[in-house]
Amino acid sequence: MAARHQFVAAGFEGASVRSIAAEAGVDPSLVIHYFGSKDRLLGAVMAWPVDLDEIAEQVVAPGPDGVGERLVRFFLAQWDDPSKRHPLTVIVRNAVSHEEAARLLAEFVRRELVGQIVPLVGEATAELRGSLVASALVGVAMTRYVVRLEPLASAPADVVVAAMAQTIQRFLTGDLTSV
Amino acid sequence: MAARHQFVAAGFEGASVRSIAAEAGVDPSLVIHYFGSKDRLLGAVMAWPVDLDEIAEQVVAPGPDGVGERLVRFFLAQWDDPSKRHPLTVIVRNAVSHEEAARLLAEFVRRELVGQIVPLVGEATAELRGSLVASALVGVAMTRYVVRLEPLASAPADVVVAAMAQTIQRFLTGDLTSV
Repeated sequence: MAARHQFVAAGFEGASVRSIAAEAGVDPSLVIHYFGSKDRLLGAVMAWPVDLDEIAEQVVAPGPDGVGERLVRFFLAQWDDPSKRHPLTVIVRNAVSHEEAARLLAEFVRRELVGQIVPLVGEATAELRGSLVASALVGVAMTRYVVRLEPLASAPADVVVAAMAQTIQRFLTGDLTSV
Repeated sequence: MAARHQFVAAGFEGASVRSIAAEAGVDPSLVIHYFGSKDRLLGAVMAWPVDLDEIAEQVVAPGPDGVGERLVRFFLAQWDDPSKRHPLTVIVRNAVSHEEAARLLAEFVRRELVGQIVPLVGEATAELRGSLVASALVGVAMTRYVVRLEPLASAPADVVVAAMAQTIQRFLTGDLTSV
């Protein structure tokens, strides 16, 4: 709870492992030992159920070709996993109803997603590309899993992948300036 | 409130102007006089702030060429209108937190959007195309206006249009089966 309080009060940049450890009354090295990094600690505070290393390995590492398709497949697999659907839904619900949760989610997505895609696309456009990808994936999550808009809600994952992969690929590696 | 109760209890298909009028203790012709149709009545129940005739006239009527760009521009103009941002945000919030609101929104979007795009794309794929377009637009609304993910939240509308128009155009009129 010290971590949540510090993140909410000071934001991700403002909060430090030192300040969080001080508020919790423990040594900063203990925080790092258990959580690994400030990013991981924020993920734990948000009850983030997706392993970021898996995104790096399965989606990003094979390179830019086909990254759109791999990311859509990975994303759907997370939401289609019964043990992850509920925590992911809670994160979306909190972000929509609480401004501070929205701010933490935005900061987390921005840092994590942008950090992962910089090797693929370079620094210059990574932030805009990251937020466009997030927008497309949040849209699928909302309509397919939360609002359950048909026929998207019941469509097989392969249909959604075929429909979405080009868009995600273009958001990541394509030209974004020509209508 | 008779209308809300009937829509929630019986769904859009199950509720009739006659049953709503009966619960409200008025003549069905009075309901039609004030609201025009069952669709309009559902829109009124949801406090839907967008004029559907404007979508038909400004977005759909000019034909399939450029409909993606026109729809993104129209959508952003609604959310960027200070008098509409709040009611739209309330609709999104309610849909995420209340299952019945999600069901009504899904039914409304499905009927209205699909009805509007059938002339452009034909019956066979209109439902899937409609839900993909809804997914993309809901994603923009969530990230740009609700969660306020940067740099998408502060990007000029023209940047968002340039980034999104191709995707919406393809969802409406393109091939959805090739990755």
